[in-house]
Formats: sequence, structure tokens, C-alpha cells
Amino acid sequence: MNKDIKKVNAAIIIIGNEILSGRTQDVNVTFLSKWLNNIGVKVEEVRVIPDNEAIIVECINKLRKKFKYVFTTGGIGPTHDDITSRSVSKAFNMQYGYHKEAYTILEEYYKQGEFSEGRKKMAKMPIQAKLIYNPSSGAPGFLVENVFCLPGVPSILKSMVDGLKNKIVGGKKILSETISIQTVESEIAQQLEDVQNKFKDIEIGSYPFFRFGKIGVSVVIRSTEKKKIDECYKQIVSFIKKNKIKILER
Amino acid sequence: MNKDIKKVNAAIIIIGNEILSGRTQDVNVTFLSKWLNNIGVKVEEVRVIPDNEAIIVECINKLRKKFKYVFTTGGIGPTHDDITSRSVSKAFNMQYGYHKEAYTILEEYYKQGEFSEGRKKMAKMPIQAKLIYNPSSGAPGFLVENVFCLPGVPSILKSMVDGLKNKIVGGKKILSETISIQTVESEIAQQLEDVQNKFKDIEIGSYPFFRFGKIGVSVVIRSTEKKKIDECYKQIVSFIKKNKIKILER
Repeated sequence: MNKDIKKVNAAIIIIGNEILSGRTQDVNVTFLSKWLNNIGVKVEEVRVIPDNEAIIVECINKLRKKFKYVFTTGGIGPTHDDITSRSVSKAFNMQYGYHKEAYTILEEYYKQGEFSEGRKKMAKMPIQAKLIYNPSSGAPGFLVENVFCLPGVPSILKSMVDGLKNKIVGGKKILSETISIQTVESEIAQQLEDVQNKFKDIEIGSYPFFRFGKIGVSVVIRSTEKKKIDECYKQIVSFIKKNKIKILER
Repeated sequence: MNKDIKKVNAAIIIIGNEILSGRTQDVNVTFLSKWLNNIGVKVEEVRVIPDNEAIIVECINKLRKKFKYVFTTGGIGPTHDDITSRSVSKAFNMQYGYHKEAYTILEEYYKQGEFSEGRKKMAKMPIQAKLIYNPSSGAPGFLVENVFCLPGVPSILKSMVDGLKNKIVGGKKILSETISIQTVESEIAQQLEDVQNKFKDIEIGSYPFFRFGKIGVSVVIRSTEKKKIDECYKQIVSFIKKNKIKILER
């Protein structure tokens, strides 16, 4: 946790050329953001950067000072293009080497004779890092101060987040209400803005969609205050009904 | 185009609280990156940022100096949370107001009496911007210098990129070869690194996967030089065969 940051916020750094090239569709942002929302941590920035040490170091050092928590995904495997652990060591000016506990975990995980040099690399990280346990494939993630390093493979990442809970002090849970209506954005823009102006500290989003075979708009209200959401929601429903707009889903 | 940048590279800025909250899965990065690769433009950074004017202005001003091209998606619709056009005007210190040509396009697009105040907002942008035509829903995107502003709705964005071709001077097309093999990364890590060390200017990526009901690794070789890719590919296939690793797909 970065104690200088008052808001309970976070940034996610996606490390990987395969995301930037379009070869791989990232799904970790959606998963992590929802999971963090649920424990009251708001993701306020995401960056996708290449497998390049200087860029990773700079990015981590910028964002860890700006956000309470920083999560990285990708680059902690055994191959030459996995350079996150080394880069984090550099960012924190910590020794990069075999992490005793990680080494023991991996040694026990693999059968005798199978703990190869390639696999040993996964025990290399900032030697003072705390571990994030990996119930699905052995190799742990780790954290240094407010920077949490997770793998890029979505199924493995998902299996590891439960182990983060006692390491993150969340804020108030971010709640939301959605109402989907059969209209176009321009029809409700003015009235929605009027409501937004009355509820300055509530986030009202308007998102056009094409589904149910229809053109519509989803209005999403987000806040940590249930009561304010309810008041805001009531006013939106009120103008929707007055305009005789059909409600598709709420 | 930013003439100070020698590499033909790009950054993408995804503007939208709905992506940061995890409510909406972004798919524009994958699409745009592949499309840009194809015309020889390499995406080197992606940022996802909230609907916040100060943050958008700062982000645009940083990235437009650092990359040859910058693409933004999202925030050009008619509602109160659509603030990209106004923010780009501020970033470039240009007047924000009705763009004559955009106004005419929208006036003609809508039936008489339907060109409401809400819809008129979509003609507001930096008044000296160049337009990017929108064959699917009328409201144009725009560009100022090297910053291209596109909508967030994926189907509309896709329909607009053809109109970008004559506005972007691409470099050499980025080519790639992939070979998927039945192994784990640690088994090939050392040999792959040896090949990488011989081909310093080629990007070799190693990506574990779980599909075909099997655990495997995809090795991806990327470069603008077909000949180098072929040489590199040959050496990789050679050690794969020597190690008797099964090739799943190539």
C-alpha cells in the first residue's frame, strides 16, 4: 500500500508484446477491475507496455508513486521474454536472485530431476519480495511494497487473487445500478446531464448498445453510497417514464 | 504524423470509465493493433484512462510528442460523459465549437426536425480538425495533427478505419510466424534464448496455452524482414525436432 495516496485506487500494468500486437486479447483487466471494485479498490489507470526493461522500470516507478496499489500481469514465466521480476528488482533497487521460499516451493512442486534450470528462473525475483501463492501451477507471484506481480495466463491469475485479500486494505465497495432503455443517447443527453449536475459526486455513464435486436442505451450509476445511487436512479427513471421510453432491462 | 519520431509507431488511448470498472471488455485495442500492424505501424503503448478532462488532456499531450500516431477511442458521443472532443481542443489549445463540415454532415444525416441539441453536440470539436468519415452512424471522428479520435463502439470504429488509410504513412509491414508445440516453456527456455541472442533485432515471444485439450507453447517470431524470420524459424524448428517435441500447429 502507498500511504501517501489517500484514495483507495489502483493501476494495472499489462506487460506483453502479444497484447500490443493484437495477437492476444487481454481479459485480465476486466477480471481484476471487477474483483478490485468488489473489495472497494477503484482502478483508475491501465497501461499496456512491451517486454522492455527500461520501459517496465519507468512505468512501475511512475505508477507506484501515483496509486495506492499497482498490479502487473505477465512476464514472470521461465523464458527470455519474461523480464518482469528482474525489472521490478531494478525499479526498487533490490537484489534480483533466488527467493528462498519460492525456490523451496518450486523444488517441492516438481518431481525429482524435473526442477530444471528453466524452472529455477521462476524462483528468481527481488529476494526480499513477499510471495503470492499459486494454487494452479506452482510458480508464485510476488509483491514489493505496493506493487503486486501476477502472471499473464488468465486462468492462473484468477486462481491466485484470493491470496491477495489479506494484503489489500480496500475502501468502501463501489456499487452500481444499470438501467437499459430503448432509445438513442441524444434523446436523453440533456436530461441525463441535468441529473449529473445535481449529483456531482456520482458517476453516471451512458453507453449505447446494439443487442436484443434493438438499439438502446445503458445508463450506469456508480458510487460507494447506496442512498445516493437510489435517489439518482429514481430521478432517471422518472424522466424516462415521462418521455415514454421503453425500459428493456433494470 | 509526428515528424520528430523516426519509428513508425503508435499509442492507443482508451477513454472510458466503463473499461476501467470492468463493466465493458475492450476489444478495440486488438482490432486497431492488428489493423495498424498490417499497414506497418507498431503499437507500442496503450493507456486506459477515465472520463476526466485534466487526465485526458495530459495523456494526449504526453503521448502525441512520444509517438508518431496517437489513436483515441471513446467519448465522442452526445452525452455529458463524452468529453474527448472538448479535451482534444484543450490539449491543442484550439477553439472548441461547431465544426462546419461535421455540422452539415449531421444535418443531412438526420430527418428534418430530428437534428436535436443532443445530436448537434456531435458536431462540436476542435473547429480546425480534419474529419474521419463514419459510414455507419453519421457522426464523424476527427484528427488534429497526429491524434486520431475514433468512437468507442467497436462496430462503428471498425467501419471507419478504411477512411484512415490515406491519412497514415505506414512503414514496413510487421510480419510474423507462429509455431505451436506440445511442451512447457521451461523445456525450451534455454534454447529459445540462444536463438534470440543470435537474432537481436527479431522479436521472439513465448506464450503458454491450454487448448486442443493439451498444454502447449506458441512461439511467435515478429519482424519486418521476411528473410530473418525464416532463418530464425528454421533454427527454432531444428531444436524442436532434435528434442522430439511434437508440433501441434504451424
